[in-house]
Amino acid sequence: MNTLSLQQFLDQEKRQIDDRLPHFIENLEAPSSLKKAMEYSLRAGGKRLRPMLLLATLHAFQKPFHLGYEVACAIEMIHTYSLIHDDLPAMDDDDLRRGLPTNHKVFGEAMAILAGDGLLTQSFQIISSLKSVDDITKIKLIQCISKAAGPEGMVGGQVADLEGEGKLLSVEELQEIHHHKTGDLLAVSVESGAILGKATEEVVHALGTFAKHLGLAFQIKDDILDVEGDEETIGKPVGSDEGNDKSTYPRILGMENAKDKLQFHLSAAKKCLYELDINHTLLLEITEYVGARSN
Amino acid sequence: MNTLSLQQFLDQEKRQIDDRLPHFIENLEAPSSLKKAMEYSLRAGGKRLRPMLLLATLHAFQKPFHLGYEVACAIEMIHTYSLIHDDLPAMDDDDLRRGLPTNHKVFGEAMAILAGDGLLTQSFQIISSLKSVDDITKIKLIQCISKAAGPEGMVGGQVADLEGEGKLLSVEELQEIHHHKTGDLLAVSVESGAILGKATEEVVHALGTFAKHLGLAFQIKDDILDVEGDEETIGKPVGSDEGNDKSTYPRILGMENAKDKLQFHLSAAKKCLYELDINHTLLLEITEYVGARSN
Repeated sequence: MNTLSLQQFLDQEKRQIDDRLPHFIENLEAPSSLKKAMEYSLRAGGKRLRPMLLLATLHAFQKPFHLGYEVACAIEMIHTYSLIHDDLPAMDDDDLRRGLPTNHKVFGEAMAILAGDGLLTQSFQIISSLKSVDDITKIKLIQCISKAAGPEGMVGGQVADLEGEGKLLSVEELQEIHHHKTGDLLAVSVESGAILGKATEEVVHALGTFAKHLGLAFQIKDDILDVEGDEETIGKPVGSDEGNDKSTYPRILGMENAKDKLQFHLSAAKKCLYELDINHTLLLEITEYVGARSN
Repeated sequence: MNTLSLQQFLDQEKRQIDDRLPHFIENLEAPSSLKKAMEYSLRAGGKRLRPMLLLATLHAFQKPFHLGYEVACAIEMIHTYSLIHDDLPAMDDDDLRRGLPTNHKVFGEAMAILAGDGLLTQSFQIISSLKSVDDITKIKLIQCISKAAGPEGMVGGQVADLEGEGKLLSVEELQEIHHHKTGDLLAVSVESGAILGKATEEVVHALGTFAKHLGLAFQIKDDILDVEGDEETIGKPVGSDEGNDKSTYPRILGMENAKDKLQFHLSAAKKCLYELDINHTLLLEITEYVGARSN
């Protein structure tokens, strides 16, 4: 397992997640229209960064990937619900997501709201029903994940983001938004891998700090790609942040300083890894990939 | 405890729930605007039927009410989230709820969506963090509640309800919608009380059946009140179902048959209670109250 390259890992495990996600929906006794809407956004793909982080963290504790598939899928369902709701006309009003029409464009607003609600709720159903995980671990996972996804985490970040629109934010305010809007769920993906890997609370916490730096790096890179990226590669119109009048790192700091800040958080993330006695190869490579990615 | 009258119970315990609900929000480290929106709908009151059912079930197992306050509040938060999302313009487009402007009318659509998301997520945070309940019980609660609230339960029922609008439904179709849209969360309130009361699985299941009959009775009574009720007492315009072109029991069955069906489900609910070896006084009185209520 130690010689697995990042590309092999991503190819192999992203496929596992892509294949498994629809199964959590298709057997539900629920209206077929609802299942279709939930599956549509789950299948719309993306990098599966959160599942990959969870699995790479499990790997860092020498645990097999299959131990993490269900929780990884549950977190991806929470991420997907948040995208569906963020894209709604009342929120960011986006027509495209990853190059495809957004959920409400295909299924209508009411169904999109309910598909999001359904994905969020089902994620807790999945975690609480895990077969090969003890109850103490399940409870720890639900505690961390509901906190990261809720008012003190992602939902709060989304509110702060909406309230910051059209204002010139300080870099501290922007960072606070991203910490919650994207950082908390990324962090809990890593923490969940560590919890499943039976890490001590101290190590879980240290890996959470790693993931928060990684999350900020990810967001800064996103902002940079929105200015410098290629429309077809990133799957959405270049310059859409500017059109939305959103605060971004390049706009607040200038492009050069934004790139410096990206490097700062990448270095800080790597430093966290070096200080831990774990098999950190994959996590390190993911960190480098986040800095180098073109989509 | 055995001589507690229904009115004493409702007065005393509804106040406990009303007083406790805002505390779950006010100490959160979240944007104050989000907390305000979440609190607004939690404070907007209502009968607190789900918490009362949970507490009355605990009472049936001779357990103290305080054992159930947190789970009762968590379920009320899920109910409240569902009302906020149901009222949205893309869904039922309601301006008033319990005589007050709906959440999106006060805080805007984006905030209403996020307040709902936040309440739903926070409910699982509350249950997973209970202090005086063992992990096995917490997991059982989260399994049942996430199933009842999710695609196979309430969210699925809401989808079926929206899809049934403008169609003439059969009474079986209408019943199926209500089973999920309102029945599942009512049933899980009772089941949660039984789980906290350490009932056997068989007894939990029997009480779930009781609650499903009660839930249908509640819905039929709602439909009847929408035709025959007093606008000020019920807190919404009389005849609003007709305006929405919704299928209702009186419309499908005629008023006389709808009233017979109400009596049938009230009797079936009471029969379930008589067959169990529990202290059923409060649950019985709640059942009678559901049939007799004027709002």
